Amino acid sequence: MSLQLPVQTVSRLCLIYRVLLGMDRETVLSSSKLGKLVNIPAHTIRKDLSVAGKLKSSNAGYKAGELLDFINGLFKFDAPLRVCVAGIGLLGSSFIKNPVQEGGQFIIVAGFDTNINKIEVMKSDVPLYPAYEMADRIRELKIDLGIIAVPAQAAEITMQRMKEGGIKGILNFSPAILGDKDIAVRNVHFAEELRFLTAMIPDLEKGD
Amino acid sequence: MSLQLPVQTVSRLCLIYRVLLGMDRETVLSSSKLGKLVNIPAHTIRKDLSVAGKLKSSNAGYKAGELLDFINGLFKFDAPLRVCVAGIGLLGSSFIKNPVQEGGQFIIVAGFDTNINKIEVMKSDVPLYPAYEMADRIRELKIDLGIIAVPAQAAEITMQRMKEGGIKGILNFSPAILGDKDIAVRNVHFAEELRFLTAMIPDLEKGD
Repeated sequence: MSLQLPVQTVSRLCLIYRVLLGMDRETVLSSSKLGKLVNIPAHTIRKDLSVAGKLKSSNAGYKAGELLDFINGLFKFDAPLRVCVAGIGLLGSSFIKNPVQEGGQFIIVAGFDTNINKIEVMKSDVPLYPAYEMADRIRELKIDLGIIAVPAQAAEITMQRMKEGGIKGILNFSPAILGDKDIAVRNVHFAEELRFLTAMIPDLEKGD
Repeated sequence: MSLQLPVQTVSRLCLIYRVLLGMDRETVLSSSKLGKLVNIPAHTIRKDLSVAGKLKSSNAGYKAGELLDFINGLFKFDAPLRVCVAGIGLLGSSFIKNPVQEGGQFIIVAGFDTNINKIEVMKSDVPLYPAYEMADRIRELKIDLGIIAVPAQAAEITMQRMKEGGIKGILNFSPAILGDKDIAVRNVHFAEELRFLTAMIPDLEKGD
């Protein structure tokens, strides 16, 4: 990314991109129509797009295809990236068996687990390797991104192995909070998502 | 929640709460030490806490236990909530078999699936029911929150069934974007998380 956009703007542009992916390129969208589709106020969308740079728009609104190309131009979302999954429990397996290939961008090319027996027994179209081979395999297979789906106590070493292999970004689903100055790390924590949801419910009766 | 706090503040307080849960109550934390633990600038933390209300603090910092109680007082995170899971594929099963019970707040009390055979065959400590019973079971079991882990095309009807049962909040993992004026909905989309991660990597080589 050449522009230094605010994190929240990037986050909203990602959401808009997702909605546009499923649309006909010729569809014309006003910012208020687009806003309704993504649950974001129209003025925020207009502000994000103006912060992100120039975009041709008529009074009628944005053409879906042009908006898609514009966001693509910022982030190059149509370039395929190679992804690996560390930890092939139920969650990790769900990524390996139902690959997140929306838009063809993310290609799962390897899975890792410390349990050698599991690796040998599990049926998978994606090749599976022992965890200790992680750094070497990441280099060899030119893997860009890693998904961490291991228990909390194994999260840090998994991140270090990925980093040693030269990975650029990590999506962490373990309960540990990971962070690194050299690579992009995104922590997704299920209990916290539920807790956030709870905090947003105004009239939830909690025994009072 | 009685206060109308900014969404980002709520989100950060949730993260701080998670870190505090794992600490000794007597630990004293400066805002910069706390900031390092959660990857948030110290001044943002101080601002969030002042927006959220008064909090006793010494010059040395905050006591972990007092900060935990303070956030609890805002959101009542220690009150147990009853949760159901719709869709027991690999992802849904991961919630049922490894319950998100951090802090004892979330209790998974039911799973639902349209595949009756799967319900009958699957071994689970959590009772499983056919999807068409969802609204009735949610009422009967007094379920507060729902996790949606069904395919995109089944997401909307699942939300409607949950709503009919009186659910207060939904955590949606299906690729569909859900929203409702009456209930709190949080969409978590894996491809989008990866895409966001990609957008945050400054020097990712993407064939240029």
